[in-house]
Amino acid sequence: MTLLIRGGTVVDSIHSYRADVLCADGKIVQIGTGLDAPAGAVIVEAGEQLVMPGGIDPHTHMELPFMGTVASDDFFSGTAAGLAGGTTSIIDFVIPNPRQSLLEAFNTWRGWAEKAASDYAFHVAVTWWDESVHREMGVLANEHGVASFKHFMAYKGAIMADDEILVNSFRRALELGALPTVHAENGELVYQLQKQLLAEGKTGPSSHPLSRPSAVEGEAANRAIRIAEVIGVPLYIVHVSAREAVQEIARARGEGQRVFGEVLGGHLLLDDSVYLDSDFTRAAAHVMSPPFRPKEHQEALWQALQAGHLHTTATDHCTFCAPQKAAGKDDFTRIPNGCGGVEDRMGVLWHYGVNSGRLTPSEFVQVTSTNAARIFNLYPRKGAVEVGADADLVVWDPNASRTISAKTHHQNVDFNIFEGRTVQGLARHTVAAGKLVWSDGDLRAERGAGRYLPRPTFPAYFQANAKRVGRSG
Amino acid sequence: MTLLIRGGTVVDSIHSYRADVLCADGKIVQIGTGLDAPAGAVIVEAGEQLVMPGGIDPHTHMELPFMGTVASDDFFSGTAAGLAGGTTSIIDFVIPNPRQSLLEAFNTWRGWAEKAASDYAFHVAVTWWDESVHREMGVLANEHGVASFKHFMAYKGAIMADDEILVNSFRRALELGALPTVHAENGELVYQLQKQLLAEGKTGPSSHPLSRPSAVEGEAANRAIRIAEVIGVPLYIVHVSAREAVQEIARARGEGQRVFGEVLGGHLLLDDSVYLDSDFTRAAAHVMSPPFRPKEHQEALWQALQAGHLHTTATDHCTFCAPQKAAGKDDFTRIPNGCGGVEDRMGVLWHYGVNSGRLTPSEFVQVTSTNAARIFNLYPRKGAVEVGADADLVVWDPNASRTISAKTHHQNVDFNIFEGRTVQGLARHTVAAGKLVWSDGDLRAERGAGRYLPRPTFPAYFQANAKRVGRSG
Amino acid sequence: MTLLIRGGTVVDSIHSYRADVLCADGKIVQIGTGLDAPAGAVIVEAGEQLVMPGGIDPHTHMELPFMGTVASDDFFSGTAAGLAGGTTSIIDFVIPNPRQSLLEAFNTWRGWAEKAASDYAFHVAVTWWDESVHREMGVLANEHGVASFKHFMAYKGAIMADDEILVNSFRRALELGALPTVHAENGELVYQLQKQLLAEGKTGPSSHPLSRPSAVEGEAANRAIRIAEVIGVPLYIVHVSAREAVQEIARARGEGQRVFGEVLGGHLLLDDSVYLDSDFTRAAAHVMSPPFRPKEHQEALWQALQAGHLHTTATDHCTFCAPQKAAGKDDFTRIPNGCGGVEDRMGVLWHYGVNSGRLTPSEFVQVTSTNAARIFNLYPRKGAVEVGADADLVVWDPNASRTISAKTHHQNVDFNIFEGRTVQGLARHTVAAGKLVWSDGDLRAERGAGRYLPRPTFPAYFQANAKRVGRSG
Amino acid sequence: MTLLIRGGTVVDSIHSYRADVLCADGKIVQIGTGLDAPAGAVIVEAGEQLVMPGGIDPHTHMELPFMGTVASDDFFSGTAAGLAGGTTSIIDFVIPNPRQSLLEAFNTWRGWAEKAASDYAFHVAVTWWDESVHREMGVLANEHGVASFKHFMAYKGAIMADDEILVNSFRRALELGALPTVHAENGELVYQLQKQLLAEGKTGPSSHPLSRPSAVEGEAANRAIRIAEVIGVPLYIVHVSAREAVQEIARARGEGQRVFGEVLGGHLLLDDSVYLDSDFTRAAAHVMSPPFRPKEHQEALWQALQAGHLHTTATDHCTFCAPQKAAGKDDFTRIPNGCGGVEDRMGVLWHYGVNSGRLTPSEFVQVTSTNAARIFNLYPRKGAVEVGADADLVVWDPNASRTISAKTHHQNVDFNIFEGRTVQGLARHTVAAGKLVWSDGDLRAERGAGRYLPRPTFPAYFQANAKRVGRSG
Repeated sequence: MTLLIRGGTVVDSIHSYRADVLCADGKIVQIGTGLDAPAGAVIVEAGEQLVMPGGIDPHTHMELPFMGTVASDDFFSGTAAGLAGGTTSIIDFVIPNPRQSLLEAFNTWRGWAEKAASDYAFHVAVTWWDESVHREMGVLANEHGVASFKHFMAYKGAIMADDEILVNSFRRALELGALPTVHAENGELVYQLQKQLLAEGKTGPSSHPLSRPSAVEGEAANRAIRIAEVIGVPLYIVHVSAREAVQEIARARGEGQRVFGEVLGGHLLLDDSVYLDSDFTRAAAHVMSPPFRPKEHQEALWQALQAGHLHTTATDHCTFCAPQKAAGKDDFTRIPNGCGGVEDRMGVLWHYGVNSGRLTPSEFVQVTSTNAARIFNLYPRKGAVEVGADADLVVWDPNASRTISAKTHHQNVDFNIFEGRTVQGLARHTVAAGKLVWSDGDLRAERGAGRYLPRPTFPAYFQANAKRVGRSG
Repeated sequence: MTLLIRGGTVVDSIHSYRADVLCADGKIVQIGTGLDAPAGAVIVEAGEQLVMPGGIDPHTHMELPFMGTVASDDFFSGTAAGLAGGTTSIIDFVIPNPRQSLLEAFNTWRGWAEKAASDYAFHVAVTWWDESVHREMGVLANEHGVASFKHFMAYKGAIMADDEILVNSFRRALELGALPTVHAENGELVYQLQKQLLAEGKTGPSSHPLSRPSAVEGEAANRAIRIAEVIGVPLYIVHVSAREAVQEIARARGEGQRVFGEVLGGHLLLDDSVYLDSDFTRAAAHVMSPPFRPKEHQEALWQALQAGHLHTTATDHCTFCAPQKAAGKDDFTRIPNGCGGVEDRMGVLWHYGVNSGRLTPSEFVQVTSTNAARIFNLYPRKGAVEVGADADLVVWDPNASRTISAKTHHQNVDFNIFEGRTVQGLARHTVAAGKLVWSDGDLRAERGAGRYLPRPTFPAYFQANAKRVGRSG
Repeated sequence: MTLLIRGGTVVDSIHSYRADVLCADGKIVQIGTGLDAPAGAVIVEAGEQLVMPGGIDPHTHMELPFMGTVASDDFFSGTAAGLAGGTTSIIDFVIPNPRQSLLEAFNTWRGWAEKAASDYAFHVAVTWWDESVHREMGVLANEHGVASFKHFMAYKGAIMADDEILVNSFRRALELGALPTVHAENGELVYQLQKQLLAEGKTGPSSHPLSRPSAVEGEAANRAIRIAEVIGVPLYIVHVSAREAVQEIARARGEGQRVFGEVLGGHLLLDDSVYLDSDFTRAAAHVMSPPFRPKEHQEALWQALQAGHLHTTATDHCTFCAPQKAAGKDDFTRIPNGCGGVEDRMGVLWHYGVNSGRLTPSEFVQVTSTNAARIFNLYPRKGAVEVGADADLVVWDPNASRTISAKTHHQNVDFNIFEGRTVQGLARHTVAAGKLVWSDGDLRAERGAGRYLPRPTFPAYFQANAKRVGRSG
Repeated sequence: MTLLIRGGTVVDSIHSYRADVLCADGKIVQIGTGLDAPAGAVIVEAGEQLVMPGGIDPHTHMELPFMGTVASDDFFSGTAAGLAGGTTSIIDFVIPNPRQSLLEAFNTWRGWAEKAASDYAFHVAVTWWDESVHREMGVLANEHGVASFKHFMAYKGAIMADDEILVNSFRRALELGALPTVHAENGELVYQLQKQLLAEGKTGPSSHPLSRPSAVEGEAANRAIRIAEVIGVPLYIVHVSAREAVQEIARARGEGQRVFGEVLGGHLLLDDSVYLDSDFTRAAAHVMSPPFRPKEHQEALWQALQAGHLHTTATDHCTFCAPQKAAGKDDFTRIPNGCGGVEDRMGVLWHYGVNSGRLTPSEFVQVTSTNAARIFNLYPRKGAVEVGADADLVVWDPNASRTISAKTHHQNVDFNIFEGRTVQGLARHTVAAGKLVWSDGDLRAERGAGRYLPRPTFPAYFQANAKRVGRSG
């Protein structure tokens, strides 16, 4: 299939310029002004619109089995919704049970993902430790294109990684040239606060944020950073939601350490007042971890995104419908944790980021696409508008508006945390692997069209020591 | 016994003024100018000298059984040496073995301490956790005058307190009005680094600092501070040696949290070059934890002391002679950890602190005596020159000099980390419980003259919430 | 006159204890339990009340000629109101016009102050520079007890001190052992913003804070701190109102520099919404400089007070009635700048500081009295409950409440910025120079009873270098 | 002329890849693997070498009239030396005298620069203020391609810009879409310290750093940043040399402000011990402002470069030979300020930056070329390896070494601050405007071949507000 995007302004991670973009056989084959359309080419007239790399959501959980149920968006519905919003790749998580083989879990997730409509890669979680885990990390990295490993510092009694696991796994990642990532919350404190709140009879969703105060995230972020510093390995912190964690990242980066931070659209925009909603269903729909925070944290997150202390935007897309959330009716610790967003991330980032004057259009491209591609070693296949790159593009209309709603979204869930917000700027057309999969409201997502993205190890930044001084004083 | 100190300048924690000080029956009974000497009173002519509260060393380990041997200074020799340097009280540590009753250990230490020449109190370590520990903390606090509990975040596989112990014990301390204290080093990282260094054949003392880099201390300091913040309890961090830990304390205090920091004379003055000494005996003599640090950390510690981010000076006095240190000849992890200093702390602080223009004389009194008394709830019995206070005083000659040496010191150990340093300013006379126990080089320490100092719970700063916001965001 | 305060709890800057306090001939003569009342002594039964050092307000402007009018509280009415609130000393400002002799201005102010009801001292402003200013600073310091000099970094075209004046005056202060103080706002920026706002037709009080954003204060605070650092002189920053300035002070202190900060009761409690009041009179009544700030600054100020980054509380008491404020009806830059508060400072600090759990009672004493006495070298004559100190005391009832109002206050002004606030804790009795001048609502202030307080130079902290490194790198 | 660089690895600001690069008519016309060489094309075999954008030195002073003499490198010799080191563009400074027309000065410099061997642009300094300056800034920006204006905060009594000039000029720059830049040193403090040192008879070069301590730079950096914040304009700080300034930049950027920082090769590598050289000639050869700093500042600068707090590397190339420097034999304030480096910048940055593991090769490209192009709005004409960009390239041999020396360098000066350093990594070939101007040690620089680079206003980052909050609190 051949496709010509004509007359638009290309925006990449560095600058903007007028150019046509010709795609063929899934790749970008020519960029220039006044390109001729090959015979049979589909033509997209971009006019006043912007041609940008398709979004990459580096943090999703499609069809995740979690807390006794399964996330409602599967790899097809979830990736299709992403395409409707301009997101053309996701990186999902393989989460083995403690004592389960990492490879076995990886194969399970690979099977589930075959139905995906867009390309996808996997992080694999390290939830326990022995020699077999050490060995399988190597197999995954060297033979299966897994170049990042995840560690949950929360969820005591389930998948929590304590210091012993962290230290062993970070050292293994360094050997393999793979990037360790962490969910940063101190699991012990969360556990004790949950117990205390339940003992006090505070069983509703409003207890959720009280059981996970921002200091809990600041602690874990710092611990992971210090461990990475001592070991000399780069580090990526998922869903940074708290000013305290931002400060730790900024401090470490200021000393030359290679630490990357991710922020969710939800944490940028919502505050913890959502948990005070007297309607359990609405309050519970917002239960995710880390929770939404008091307002001052949002300003800190935006500033960090502007400053380059945070690098990527994601969603932690993990949807549960009201009947699923109801499992925690009498005990907030049993509410399945998770919110959606894969469809809306690009739109809210543009509206609240670019339209507000916080970010330039190229910075928008960096934080929605290019940085994720570079950090997770998918660049320049993904994240670039360059000849030879995958033809994953979004034609962005900066003037059109839409109002976000669960009634109209394509996500398979009955709630939308951005419900009712009108945002200016939207994906007019989405091109994935050179095909027009979303065009003026028409979603042409194809079940199984997505491909697994194996990723090489040793991304460029491994060439620079995580911190030059290494483990000395 | 009645004793009149005549003609000196009283320096307390706030200001200086000319006054005589009359002591009787172990107490200060009168302060004023031109006091008459009661019949039979011992007269000390203070002349150009300064009359200050006797020093309090809040961190000693006399006759500690540790790493297969026993510290060479016992409660008598150690406290006697303290008197020779102007230190009239110590706070030592009861360290139960895991699974050992806290009370049993407390009684053991009380027995050992009966030979002390100066007054003493105890911190008790919490090295494990169950209901009996919870209960015995209450007994110690309410019936035995133990108002502070210690937690070792290092020493994995031995006395290390993990997060579960820390959270439980800190919460119990809050209920009791007792102060939790921590030795802040990440035990897991130390353990792994030790293993790695030994595996690489790096078995000498020069590996000691490499196994405990400053980031390891920064991590643990922050973790303890965050846990204390979430729980809402004040916190005291012993032997702060690293810039990273100082920064964490300053940050927390700047947000209104009640965190106190202690620094050792050794960490203020020595750097890690001592571990490169080719003579094993000399290098091993400096092995203690945290280790001596690269030079830039010393400047950070002095600045923190000036700024009020650090509050007390101590020694971690825990002496081992060369034959004891030799246990680690082939394995640095087996060198008994510990250095001396109880005799020299006041002298080096005056010389390098006051003579250098860093500290005023009143600030010297604060950091060598008054602050420890206030934090550990011994004030105004100790740490004050006030009518009614214990007559524990030092008559300080700011003009005289001496050269520190193991050959002449009164400590029962064959090494002195300050060997060869000439310091100006020394204890000309020391008065303890109203008696002249050190006078112009004559040490009159009396075995068993020291008394146990029970301490009430709920020191004044418990009235202010550790951090007002408590556990919320 | 002899006066016995019986049965109360003495609270000083360090601790609390039960004791009676006997005053005679204007001094404290005895402190102890069970004191006998001399014949004819006035007895104050303190009961459950607290006996604390009388407050010191280190920043007032009584009967100041300013912006074409004169402040409505004169030295009598202002100091009398202070006594009603527990404040027994003030430090006011002599402000020479540019080119005016400092001595001449000093004498003018001394004359005005003769009517004061409480003791008072003076800072003298340096508003211009030549050799005569250099000389008169010496005369003031050495012969008239002026141990602090003030510099306005704002008010371009009037009394603004530019860098040349600052550098010259700070160096002279260092020679004299006197403390330089600054009003920290960048006068050029304020001037330009005022011009711009007026040009845009924004002439109302709501433009006042827009013309003096917090960055303007942060800039000036840092500039003064850096100049003091290079010169090696201590520094005191008056009315710190902005987070930015707090951060600069904390930074400098953290590096060992001797910088002190003052905060006003108003800045701790009011935010900038007051300027949006549609009633010009009410909005204008809040016009002072620096202005009230957005809410987040208040939290920063409280935290800094808790942390010891700010040391004193003051009021900048400078009152103008509605007809005076009306001068700026059509031009906010002509509204006389100033608000009251000398009567209410102690009450609001206790209520919002101690009752809220932010400050301990001893910390309250520090920030309302002792620290000012120590910094401005009035200690222990003022700021202490000690034998020999001036008998300036407040008997504080922590349980009683009152509602603040212009209708009932003793200040000679028709507005109160704390109007309608009910605070718990109040001055039940105030003792000044040993006399009961306020008792259960009965104000017995005596015109002219106040004495000028000459202050020696070289306070104790001059013994420690402002920053050890001095002017090197 | 046609030129094919064959077989190398292209390194741009984002990534590295194997490709040939074909240049024709001064532009890059094709990038790809296996390109055919057009007839007559010059072939450069790149082999194991790297093909990178030619360096941009954004801070030079060729043939500057300064301090009574003229810099020894003129636009030809200076740019030719740059080409020998891989630098293909410079941005020099037009510095009008106070009261001189900016346009007149601009024209003077344009005339001097016609002899340049490489392309060049100009910053224009604002050294005074009136309406004509305001007007001429507009003419320069709109008609002459001057998109950045420089302000000297030092050099009191000569070209110093006080706050009034800064505020007026920054506001004008904002209107014009031009970038204000500052030399950040507090001129008043420098002036007073110079006077004091001379008065004390300290007339030698060792007084130079004492007269410009790092606090002086920290102050000015913060002042400029705060002024830019209040006005809402981006800011660029030239030759950041002090930790204090780095901290201010990091703080501002962390709050979302658009502040850029430049660092010189010299400040990254030399410390202030050079001024203690007993040989006046050698000591004086290092006299530049800001001076070289104590060692700890260098670590801070490197970390800031790694962290992205500093963005560009430059040289402040301004050379004076020994006889010129001798003007200050008896008075260090008369030593012409300036050092060289345009030839060596790329080499020392690669050796100490990339070989040490601090920077990746792409980060090297950013800080030596791309960032300068983006900040000063020359991108993608300069700073990119892209079809359509100017064919300014360096073929870099990362394995070859050379030893820097004044004996062999091409700069017209008798001293080299990097004398004797052996660096690995060098420009094997330099291509400027598509011509091979340096090849294997053969310098083919052509007098007058360089072109003036007019720069458009409103670079992309003007689209994002300098700080969103603008002038409010």
